[in-house]
Amino acid sequence: MTFLQKLEALRREKRSVLCVGIDPDAEKIPPMLREQDDFIFTFCRDVIEATAPHAIAFKFNFAFFEALGAPGWQILERLRQVVPPGCLTIADAKRGDIGNSARHYARAIFDRLEFEAVTVNPYMGYDASEPFLSYSQKGIFFLCLTSNPGAADVQFYPDPERPLYHRVAELVAGWNRHDNCGLVAGATRPAQLAEIRRLAPRLPLLIPGIGAQGGSVAATLQAVGDANVLISASRSILYASDGADYARAAAGAAAALQREMRQVSIKRMNFRELEKLRRT
Amino acid sequence: MTFLQKLEALRREKRSVLCVGIDPDAEKIPPMLREQDDFIFTFCRDVIEATAPHAIAFKFNFAFFEALGAPGWQILERLRQVVPPGCLTIADAKRGDIGNSARHYARAIFDRLEFEAVTVNPYMGYDASEPFLSYSQKGIFFLCLTSNPGAADVQFYPDPERPLYHRVAELVAGWNRHDNCGLVAGATRPAQLAEIRRLAPRLPLLIPGIGAQGGSVAATLQAVGDANVLISASRSILYASDGADYARAAAGAAAALQREMRQVSIKRMNFRELEKLRRT
Repeated sequence: MTFLQKLEALRREKRSVLCVGIDPDAEKIPPMLREQDDFIFTFCRDVIEATAPHAIAFKFNFAFFEALGAPGWQILERLRQVVPPGCLTIADAKRGDIGNSARHYARAIFDRLEFEAVTVNPYMGYDASEPFLSYSQKGIFFLCLTSNPGAADVQFYPDPERPLYHRVAELVAGWNRHDNCGLVAGATRPAQLAEIRRLAPRLPLLIPGIGAQGGSVAATLQAVGDANVLISASRSILYASDGADYARAAAGAAAALQREMRQVSIKRMNFRELEKLRRT
Repeated sequence: MTFLQKLEALRREKRSVLCVGIDPDAEKIPPMLREQDDFIFTFCRDVIEATAPHAIAFKFNFAFFEALGAPGWQILERLRQVVPPGCLTIADAKRGDIGNSARHYARAIFDRLEFEAVTVNPYMGYDASEPFLSYSQKGIFFLCLTSNPGAADVQFYPDPERPLYHRVAELVAGWNRHDNCGLVAGATRPAQLAEIRRLAPRLPLLIPGIGAQGGSVAATLQAVGDANVLISASRSILYASDGADYARAAAGAAAALQREMRQVSIKRMNFRELEKLRRT
């Protein structure tokens, strides 16, 4: 079963395209938890268990764990084991280095931490990506168009007719021999999302930028459809409450996003059916 | 004292532009060591101590430590403390993420691990780089032109007249408000090194690709001069011997590189003096 097949099977089974981003920021974790030992693990575990019914993936942002040093890496190892079956695990590590080093990054993420997918930076090209790509059952999401304002500095180079992110989408489509490639594309730019979908229709899109960053679920799904998609939300779920009910609040926020995604999908389906009727 | 000033002071004091890359690959470490507990730490520590007189920086390749999981991160923390004064420490982590995450990566590397410099991937643009740049005393080396064959896929886009790596060199030159920026540019492409130097004359260049990857010291220094430069070698120093004399052999390899760099510099100086004489 390819990574793409796994993703699509989960989407159909759970009627969800939600990916919950795990970005534990000690300053934002409910104060009542912060006095406990091991509170970062406890907080993340509780959120994962509470939101798992609504999500098909968890994306772990390595920056937040590395900021804790070696103990952060241990928390990451333990949390990876907490994710229940029925949810994919994505290492949001944005790695990228030449072949010999990339091989070690791939080992760290796929063999040691046993993640099922990773985010990779495409700047160094094919041979730097190949050590990841050679894991044919894993998912490799390449940064294409990111959700931040500075994305324009490099990703829009040299001009609007042929920006670099188009080139990246086409390159990665060519690297996708095992149906194990995907693209990261931010929800903050729906028009460009539609372009990316057109350039690489078979690649699943991992779409951050919903919620705190300002992207909209409806605009995103209108732009790319709801197949081969993971919509990722982090802060709006993790920090839905700073009280003792944080896990319940996170589940509520995840459920609300899942509902919103379903409604958009149903509207799109109705629209497609109406279109069909109109044509007959 | 800015990072640039620190680098130049060390270069003059030690008459060296050598950076030793610490890429510990368990399979390449001398077999007689491998049975010991903690042999990766022992090996790296011995090489650092033996080569420090010849080098002005050590570059730690995070891939090789992360492949060991949390224990690898601990080894990194301890090795960082072993580097003697008179040598800069570079976290070769090639990080890059949006602002909120980049801030956590910067904290991990500068505050927790206390590195003096880092390598960063420019793909996400200014606001993703700013959390690193705000550390005005640290060094931030942005990937510009890498030493691997696949570099051409993205870094040469869209055409030879205005490749992306030119754009990156110019962008980073503009971000260099604190003399804390530099560029990573591979020794395998000396002609392009000269272009980068011309586009960003004030930025120090961190140049890997000497030795195992095929770059030449002479061609590199001819292309970029010997000011504002760090030439990095890893495998040719680390694995100079697989016997009990590995540390001595590493020191020998480092000393030989340092000598080669000096000879090229002296020839360049003589050439400049001859040129001056010719003009008078």
